[in-house]
Amino acid sequence: MVGEATETEMNECHELDASTAATLIRRGELSSQALVVACLARIDARERELGAWQFLAREQALEQAREADVREARGPLHGVPIAVKDVFDTFDMPTTLGSPIYTNRQPRWDAACVAAARAAGAIPLGKTVTTEFASYHPGKTRNPHDVSRTPGGSSSGSAAAIADFMAPLAFGTQTAASVTRPAAFCGVIGYKATFGELPLSGVRPLAQSLDTLGIFARSVADVALLRDVLLGADPSPLPASTTPPRLGVCRTSSWPLAEPVMRDALQAAVARLLHAGAIVDEIELPDAFCAVTDAQQVIMTYETARNYVFEMTQRPDDLSASFRAICEAGMRIERTTYLDALRRVAEAERMLPDAMRDCDALVTPATRGEAPPIEAGTGDPVMSRMWTALGTPTLALPVPRTGGALPLAVQLVANRHADPRLLEIGAWATVALGRAV
Amino acid sequence: MVGEATETEMNECHELDASTAATLIRRGELSSQALVVACLARIDARERELGAWQFLAREQALEQAREADVREARGPLHGVPIAVKDVFDTFDMPTTLGSPIYTNRQPRWDAACVAAARAAGAIPLGKTVTTEFASYHPGKTRNPHDVSRTPGGSSSGSAAAIADFMAPLAFGTQTAASVTRPAAFCGVIGYKATFGELPLSGVRPLAQSLDTLGIFARSVADVALLRDVLLGADPSPLPASTTPPRLGVCRTSSWPLAEPVMRDALQAAVARLLHAGAIVDEIELPDAFCAVTDAQQVIMTYETARNYVFEMTQRPDDLSASFRAICEAGMRIERTTYLDALRRVAEAERMLPDAMRDCDALVTPATRGEAPPIEAGTGDPVMSRMWTALGTPTLALPVPRTGGALPLAVQLVANRHADPRLLEIGAWATVALGRAV
Repeated sequence: MVGEATETEMNECHELDASTAATLIRRGELSSQALVVACLARIDARERELGAWQFLAREQALEQAREADVREARGPLHGVPIAVKDVFDTFDMPTTLGSPIYTNRQPRWDAACVAAARAAGAIPLGKTVTTEFASYHPGKTRNPHDVSRTPGGSSSGSAAAIADFMAPLAFGTQTAASVTRPAAFCGVIGYKATFGELPLSGVRPLAQSLDTLGIFARSVADVALLRDVLLGADPSPLPASTTPPRLGVCRTSSWPLAEPVMRDALQAAVARLLHAGAIVDEIELPDAFCAVTDAQQVIMTYETARNYVFEMTQRPDDLSASFRAICEAGMRIERTTYLDALRRVAEAERMLPDAMRDCDALVTPATRGEAPPIEAGTGDPVMSRMWTALGTPTLALPVPRTGGALPLAVQLVANRHADPRLLEIGAWATVALGRAV
Repeated sequence: MVGEATETEMNECHELDASTAATLIRRGELSSQALVVACLARIDARERELGAWQFLAREQALEQAREADVREARGPLHGVPIAVKDVFDTFDMPTTLGSPIYTNRQPRWDAACVAAARAAGAIPLGKTVTTEFASYHPGKTRNPHDVSRTPGGSSSGSAAAIADFMAPLAFGTQTAASVTRPAAFCGVIGYKATFGELPLSGVRPLAQSLDTLGIFARSVADVALLRDVLLGADPSPLPASTTPPRLGVCRTSSWPLAEPVMRDALQAAVARLLHAGAIVDEIELPDAFCAVTDAQQVIMTYETARNYVFEMTQRPDDLSASFRAICEAGMRIERTTYLDALRRVAEAERMLPDAMRDCDALVTPATRGEAPPIEAGTGDPVMSRMWTALGTPTLALPVPRTGGALPLAVQLVANRHADPRLLEIGAWATVALGRAV
């Protein structure tokens, strides 16, 4: 992989994944400056059309790249550019949360994940577009595969930037489907961590029982690398799966909402996974899981309303009508309804390990179908709500499409805290599915 | 209660609890201005000695009080002053988190709880002293009952301000014992909510699996009132307990650490509760609970380290040596050790409802003993670590002491989300124990 990559160093190095780029930089075969220049050139060429960036730290990133090139490596991401969703505080860049209320808001600290990436040598290129407060009201970003389509939300800019080779790595957050859906619509890898495991310090909560850190990348190895950095662990290459994984095809009670293209794509993906040696079973979840998707929506709406009291009471006119409507609806939800939703989620959560006892990961649709037209919003989060509520790690993996079709993805799901195994399976599945990106 | 209180209106209204003050203001029998003036006068008289405040919004609070007096009531806290721990963001006051790194840091928003209190008519008087990042390194605050003693931490200023009648209500946070311990040491009521139920938006995380909102007050009714405000619920007076509560005296595996004064105080409190009609049993928790206190410490240290990467990498010299040591220790904790700690907590959590099936609340020590000398730090959090980890709501209730003895408190504990019942029992127990504050 590294061998091939060096050939593209001069002209196409922005297409390298982060692991490869970091290796080449460490070996002196690629300069951080060349990489940052290439990413910025790509952004210059495409940004007007895509609108992936809320803020670009051009000069600062170039300076940091030049410094990186003359300094000893600081860590495993030395000299590698990274894109940061504009909900993560950054001490040297504004953080607006996609709201006009916070134009030019300048935090005094870095979100913990940004600080950890920097400490490992990464160079933040800028802040990527988020929907308003990582909720539903869309930003300016368009889908790189078809600018008439949504990139998905809320991590719209991060997914688009990775898909369009503007940066190799990006941070996102997910409360309903804000990593999985844009990753799927943009055709990149989207990893949502186990709830609570990766730090969200420096990120304003949307719904505290659901908010989760996510990573966008073009290889599963990159996800694993950045995850190790955030955990303060020594990066270790993903172990190659020696035995094929046991997978459970899980259609969930939302399956009737899957469009024919998605059903076909799942079918085709399963055929390839089987062909590559996976043991694949059908997994039907107990009835208790049927309630989880609706419960997620109750929890999210209830908590969002109570987290955004300042804006609702002091700046209501600067909120989108849809965000105001969510907060109003959330305030009308009774506590008993909220507690019932939490109880339903907890009940299903307790049953999941047993339901998954015969498989290492579930395979399920990442979205209902392809990215909808941009006028229709950021797409339906229904296929991810359940997994966010259950706190399971998930990995959106693009599946092969033929000639010009828009991206589609399957979603791999593992038990809570089985993130390392999920990434291992993800790396295996990427090869099995027959494409990197 | 209201009848009595009106007599004190002119000269001692700063000693009123918030519910009484709000009622008097609503009836036109007390002005918000008089109340705020009285609180500020109390602060002027005592602050030099106690050091409860990080920032005082004197003129602004007075102006808001004058406005409140000529305007229709906004909500159930109309015209009532409130104290805010300096970890909660405030759009009109600096928020330093007790760290010199963030001197003069001015957020652009209010923490959700502050916004909700304001929307209900409350007037923030200022920001109260916190230990550094709500961890262990103490601020300047002294115990109002004996200035040679610690007020406890981390919500040091909030507890001291309530105890010293500088404000009737205060916000705090708890990750180990940061509400229970200062409440106990200062002789006020300290409520820690069920984990996750009350919004921490606008509060930088210390340890995301543990951080919980808390309220300091001089009556349980005030806790219930502010809690309703935060939930966006119509405030309803605490129902009077018609049947005496079933209480479980729970010594926990930390009992050997309780000092003789605490053992005696618990014994005496139980005698009074029994005398008042409570059904009291001894509850011995299953062995699984023995591991929870240590597990809490592992989780807290592990997560703190990963949330404070920015400060550790960019401003290490501006951190206390003890905070740096915590972050260094946390980074050395392996993920497997952390996951094992989470697993142990989850196991005990699952067993708690059954262990408590015959009682409405547990009664357990709030601290090991009285407030230690100020040189010794903010006191041992050991008696609260378990309950914070389990996510249960807790209520520290002062117990009667004789002639000049320092405050001591018992801690009532209920099942997750049984907060309303806990407060109801707390109100009953306050009467049974024979003192308000």
